[in-house]
Amino acid sequence: MTTQDTVDRHEYGVHSEVGRLRKVLVCAPGLAHRRLTPTNSDDLLFDDVMWVENAQRDHADFVNKLRERGVDVVELHELLAQTMTIPAAKDWLLDRKIVANEVGLGIVDATRAYLESLEPAELAKYLIGGLATTDLPDDYRTDYVALVRESTGVREYLMPPLPNTLYTRDTTCWLYGGLTLNPLYWPARHDETLLMKAIYTFHPDFAGSVVWWGDPELDWGQATFEGGDIMPVGNGVVLMGMSERTSRQAITQVAKALFDLGAAEHVVVAGMPKLRSAMHLDTVFTFADRDLVTLYPTIMDAVHTFSLRPGDKAPGIDIVDEGSTPFTDVVAKALGLPELRIVETGGDVYASERQQWDSGNNAVALEPGVVFTYDRNTQTNTLLRKAGVEVITIVGAELGRGRGGGHCMTCPIVRDPVEF
Amino acid sequence: MTTQDTVDRHEYGVHSEVGRLRKVLVCAPGLAHRRLTPTNSDDLLFDDVMWVENAQRDHADFVNKLRERGVDVVELHELLAQTMTIPAAKDWLLDRKIVANEVGLGIVDATRAYLESLEPAELAKYLIGGLATTDLPDDYRTDYVALVRESTGVREYLMPPLPNTLYTRDTTCWLYGGLTLNPLYWPARHDETLLMKAIYTFHPDFAGSVVWWGDPELDWGQATFEGGDIMPVGNGVVLMGMSERTSRQAITQVAKALFDLGAAEHVVVAGMPKLRSAMHLDTVFTFADRDLVTLYPTIMDAVHTFSLRPGDKAPGIDIVDEGSTPFTDVVAKALGLPELRIVETGGDVYASERQQWDSGNNAVALEPGVVFTYDRNTQTNTLLRKAGVEVITIVGAELGRGRGGGHCMTCPIVRDPVEF
Amino acid sequence: MTTQDTVDRHEYGVHSEVGRLRKVLVCAPGLAHRRLTPTNSDDLLFDDVMWVENAQRDHADFVNKLRERGVDVVELHELLAQTMTIPAAKDWLLDRKIVANEVGLGIVDATRAYLESLEPAELAKYLIGGLATTDLPDDYRTDYVALVRESTGVREYLMPPLPNTLYTRDTTCWLYGGLTLNPLYWPARHDETLLMKAIYTFHPDFAGSVVWWGDPELDWGQATFEGGDIMPVGNGVVLMGMSERTSRQAITQVAKALFDLGAAEHVVVAGMPKLRSAMHLDTVFTFADRDLVTLYPTIMDAVHTFSLRPGDKAPGIDIVDEGSTPFTDVVAKALGLPELRIVETGGDVYASERQQWDSGNNAVALEPGVVFTYDRNTQTNTLLRKAGVEVITIVGAELGRGRGGGHCMTCPIVRDPVEF
Amino acid sequence: MTTQDTVDRHEYGVHSEVGRLRKVLVCAPGLAHRRLTPTNSDDLLFDDVMWVENAQRDHADFVNKLRERGVDVVELHELLAQTMTIPAAKDWLLDRKIVANEVGLGIVDATRAYLESLEPAELAKYLIGGLATTDLPDDYRTDYVALVRESTGVREYLMPPLPNTLYTRDTTCWLYGGLTLNPLYWPARHDETLLMKAIYTFHPDFAGSVVWWGDPELDWGQATFEGGDIMPVGNGVVLMGMSERTSRQAITQVAKALFDLGAAEHVVVAGMPKLRSAMHLDTVFTFADRDLVTLYPTIMDAVHTFSLRPGDKAPGIDIVDEGSTPFTDVVAKALGLPELRIVETGGDVYASERQQWDSGNNAVALEPGVVFTYDRNTQTNTLLRKAGVEVITIVGAELGRGRGGGHCMTCPIVRDPVEF
Repeated sequence: MTTQDTVDRHEYGVHSEVGRLRKVLVCAPGLAHRRLTPTNSDDLLFDDVMWVENAQRDHADFVNKLRERGVDVVELHELLAQTMTIPAAKDWLLDRKIVANEVGLGIVDATRAYLESLEPAELAKYLIGGLATTDLPDDYRTDYVALVRESTGVREYLMPPLPNTLYTRDTTCWLYGGLTLNPLYWPARHDETLLMKAIYTFHPDFAGSVVWWGDPELDWGQATFEGGDIMPVGNGVVLMGMSERTSRQAITQVAKALFDLGAAEHVVVAGMPKLRSAMHLDTVFTFADRDLVTLYPTIMDAVHTFSLRPGDKAPGIDIVDEGSTPFTDVVAKALGLPELRIVETGGDVYASERQQWDSGNNAVALEPGVVFTYDRNTQTNTLLRKAGVEVITIVGAELGRGRGGGHCMTCPIVRDPVEF
Repeated sequence: MTTQDTVDRHEYGVHSEVGRLRKVLVCAPGLAHRRLTPTNSDDLLFDDVMWVENAQRDHADFVNKLRERGVDVVELHELLAQTMTIPAAKDWLLDRKIVANEVGLGIVDATRAYLESLEPAELAKYLIGGLATTDLPDDYRTDYVALVRESTGVREYLMPPLPNTLYTRDTTCWLYGGLTLNPLYWPARHDETLLMKAIYTFHPDFAGSVVWWGDPELDWGQATFEGGDIMPVGNGVVLMGMSERTSRQAITQVAKALFDLGAAEHVVVAGMPKLRSAMHLDTVFTFADRDLVTLYPTIMDAVHTFSLRPGDKAPGIDIVDEGSTPFTDVVAKALGLPELRIVETGGDVYASERQQWDSGNNAVALEPGVVFTYDRNTQTNTLLRKAGVEVITIVGAELGRGRGGGHCMTCPIVRDPVEF
Repeated sequence: MTTQDTVDRHEYGVHSEVGRLRKVLVCAPGLAHRRLTPTNSDDLLFDDVMWVENAQRDHADFVNKLRERGVDVVELHELLAQTMTIPAAKDWLLDRKIVANEVGLGIVDATRAYLESLEPAELAKYLIGGLATTDLPDDYRTDYVALVRESTGVREYLMPPLPNTLYTRDTTCWLYGGLTLNPLYWPARHDETLLMKAIYTFHPDFAGSVVWWGDPELDWGQATFEGGDIMPVGNGVVLMGMSERTSRQAITQVAKALFDLGAAEHVVVAGMPKLRSAMHLDTVFTFADRDLVTLYPTIMDAVHTFSLRPGDKAPGIDIVDEGSTPFTDVVAKALGLPELRIVETGGDVYASERQQWDSGNNAVALEPGVVFTYDRNTQTNTLLRKAGVEVITIVGAELGRGRGGGHCMTCPIVRDPVEF
Repeated sequence: MTTQDTVDRHEYGVHSEVGRLRKVLVCAPGLAHRRLTPTNSDDLLFDDVMWVENAQRDHADFVNKLRERGVDVVELHELLAQTMTIPAAKDWLLDRKIVANEVGLGIVDATRAYLESLEPAELAKYLIGGLATTDLPDDYRTDYVALVRESTGVREYLMPPLPNTLYTRDTTCWLYGGLTLNPLYWPARHDETLLMKAIYTFHPDFAGSVVWWGDPELDWGQATFEGGDIMPVGNGVVLMGMSERTSRQAITQVAKALFDLGAAEHVVVAGMPKLRSAMHLDTVFTFADRDLVTLYPTIMDAVHTFSLRPGDKAPGIDIVDEGSTPFTDVVAKALGLPELRIVETGGDVYASERQQWDSGNNAVALEPGVVFTYDRNTQTNTLLRKAGVEVITIVGAELGRGRGGGHCMTCPIVRDPVEF
């Protein structure tokens, strides 16, 4: 799968936002995106349909550039296919996916039989891409299929497509030496975490990793948590956007777990403005160098900041309301920096709104001062370059249509610390 | 609570849609509806805000008319308050409601302490009406409260309001001699079923009832089921609307449970047209007499009908696609009737669409040929009267704003069979 | 039509917002509202359908209360019917309504012939209520009717319904001794002003009135103007909300007309916040007494105020940006008052948002300190009463569904000045 | 501007949908598209923002391919700039654009003065791209500018941007030897036709052309007409989609004008299904060869067809309801063909819906059997090629975001007839 040096599992861990990236998880576009139509895209949380072949080409180019720079890139379809070669893993996952509550009584056995008949790579394709009744060969059909046809939306599937797997950032977060298995906000994304649990439980490269928090087999209620809001910036600090998708109920639980296990000492919470509830922190704020961030001021100026630290009183968290202190000042201080250098979204009022929308602030760093961004954000890219950052571009014409950029499409597994 | 003759628990059961109604569960408008605003009503699944005092008056009048006709009416706030007088019940429910996943770590203990301090009726009021941070007395506040304030939507609550309790029909269904504890479609309604489980587990008038299917402590995935789609019409037949809210995954499970337990012999599935996904069967089709229904033809003409019956092959259900046979013909045959008499929504094309919207077809029967409907559907009411039905009206100016009528607002607990 | 003392046309004029109301124009609910359905209500700018019979009853009660207090109330259907008894008026209006651009070539003659055959009251009913092809008797149908049936939305009509005539406030404004014939924002309302021009041109009680500005036979482009934003408060001052519906292009033209003709000396512009573009000034701010206003602070606090006065430089208007001075302070000063007394929308954060939505601030004064409001805004009504205001209530269950209250439903024609 | 052979004005005319294309009008993306943001794109009728530089590159490539094939391509910015070199034309257009109703009293003179100071190309750029107050140099600002800043939406401009000029197809239609100056449905597009009238009145290459119908200086009410619905297919036949945007009121007027002037003998009306009101005929049906069409069956199967022909009775049109005869059969018969060959949108149910959305059926022919389509519709393109059509592709990644393809982006001025 790769010619890169691989990293031993015992060294897995993400110790900063901009230190040398050594291993990363991505997910290529595929069958799930071929299922997207103007009618169902809202249900599946996409703004628009994409030209899948070109999206695949552009994603492959992104992966290639990562590998050329020495990053060990692992891909979700491949990891899942490898996992499905393990009989216990296949049983574990199909026992949880092919149940009456999801597939429908009367077609459980036939669906299971069909999936059992597939090669691992084919099985992985359907686990991510969804299984429509029309995918079932005639031998596996029952009278029950007629009922499925009358169902609407994602319920017309025997397994729903998971197109948001493209954004591997959200599903799991490595925070220093361990990870979280995130309960995602939208029910349509819930099964993404189940796939990741199968990998972290059974795949030999991943089994045995430390899990700080989260388990897709439990019901987390309001405690939802998405990686797009979470940044382990180093120095024992984790930034967490409190948004529609990442709730206080989850943030405080994860903070407590990190504090109790000695994994972190300070969580800086960015309370996102209520009007833009759907926005992750990383869509308006990312790091490009150890002391340099790119941000969209229209939103970031309205952030309300809190600091969480270990405390004596139950439940063991001290909460400080940072009041009117700007988020970037709180972050700089937490990192021991005099201040953060800031590159705002480029251009006039029209251009900056357009570029934020096109993931202009959604940079992902390869190492300090070297980032990937979409090609289309030419003005922000120019400002980053003028600030001394090396900007490598990803073609965004198709990939950008789901409203996520390089940061969203990468889940770092190994990243070095940086000095502050 | 009532001067009516009460019914012994061992006689609970609903054996038809129009037989003599003897005991029914309703829920009065209250605090939950005072929380509704134009901003949050979508999240809480209401179309509009209502004048709560008048809604209460109109609901009380409806209850009064039911009682005058000899029905034993029980009310959810009262049942819940009675249940909360039982220490084990209070512990059971608060153990499940006041948890870190819902309330948020750091305020669990204070919230629990405050709720423990309340009288049962006051506690029931907040369990249904929701608990805002502003409801917490100063003594119970912690630093954590600031985080709550920054949250959006229903997450700004420590317990979210449950205004859809008004529609007791959906949450539980008595189907002949037992009931279902329904997994509701919208997460915002999930806790309604938890309240009902507390009552059916601990309240002396309800404990020991037979539960066919459902448990709010389990995750039902796509298997959602709402009483507005379900009608135990008698003769061993149950009608089930297959809609956005009531899925094939649930329908087949409930059918199998009913067949296996000998509770029913035939489930007639009304596949609702996909374009109007949010519609329950009872918003377009209800019974007014043993052989008389009122329906909205624009929708009902597009229904695709299936019959489920006990079968030999696993999983024990025979599924027959009824093809182009009209739903009403399938129902008539199942009941052993030559045909159903039909009263369509009244008036011209404008009026019938208006009246369907105003719950014009959402009649609930007191006994054969005697129904309650909203006063505002004057044309449909006139047609029902011309067909020999006694129509008693409910004032709908406020109650109707949540898009549910008399059928939605009642959960029959004891209803006699009828002869066919 | 009325037993009140009528006012001579030469005395028409509105000299304040709270002086003695002597003559007012209203429009009863009717056929146009029977055409409203959940499908078409958005196109016709209504939030919900209403029970027309009850809306008529409640509107009649409002009119009756106005008359009992000595106001000469004129009603639009009646005025239009009286106007249609004048052959020249009927020709003028039908020449403009029954044209190929509106009715469609091929059915112009038949439609005209049918309308010519009607009694004046019947004709007025259709002019306001719209004419569907199904209203055309068989004798008047042509092959062309089939084409109409295939059309969508308001285009399925030969004359579209005008349900917003209910809000007579918007269409014309008496500002001191003359009036404006307003170009309304939504094309669906344009013909309302044409009906008013027919009345002001031909009806003997109205012909000869001074028109400051506006003519529905001209195209006003971006210069749209709606009475809900306009208040002639006295002392030569006019308040104008600059909103989505009332534009700077219109405001400056009307200001200049008033200044040039000596009708006013000061226009105070309330720049409404951009986020709530659809809101008229009178939905968040009205007068209840000579120095007392009721307002919704959430919106009014975000208003940006400007003063327009006659100036020497072309085009003859001085524009002063009032910066951070509160709107109410600018208004108080303009009226020569030390300050305005303010009654905010009542209740907690939920209740005040609910009441603003239910037209809680949309009071209309009968005389200083006597206002009409909807019954449902009990908390704001109580606060007004505590401030010494006599509050007479209108039943709002049905009338309020179009999001307009007593102020919106009245177009004062004669109102006395007040002393400041 | 071009190395092609130019065509004499007296030979202008479009005599088919697929005959040799000789002269065509396009409009390059530009300033208007730089104004698009996620906030304002709905108002400006765009689904998404585009990367303007790349859209320009892809458009230039399309134009280049047209020119390489011998087509005389004229571009709107250039035509308008040429027109603006004529003083009378500049006066005519600015007299109509820079008026108090649009710009706002108090800034008319300054805006006019600034625009008069510009070179023709710069003036054309702003006429199409819009003029924001921030574009006005300090010397031209007045106090009035503050009022503009408080306005919302397109009203914040002194001249609004016209990004839909990209779709030159809609604004004017050459139908055989003359053209229509179309009243467009959305007010936001109205001024596009005014620019075209300036060109057709003053530009030496266009002045003197025969105008069958339409004039942007008149108010056409419900009679709106868009070129995307109109196809002069030859043999004296014109196809007209009756849609939300192209109304029966306009269709019958244009038909009558064409019949009276002897320009056509048969108008075939495609009554588009009501549910998809926003759709032009050419988004679901276009010609690829003299007897070959590509269409989206999901929509086209629901079309209701009418034939209009000259008639004796007033108003001179015979209307025949074609009942259940398929649209394609009526068209084939009108053209004297035994039948039309049909290429449906390619792929499975997901792919065909996706490709229709991506303008997969929006082909424009260069000559019989040679068409331009977007590259992304690979499946439909393959089917066309298998049917013997030469398919030349346009890069659609950016251009396609406004939901229009090659047919929408071209307004043929000279196209040869074909034999049937």
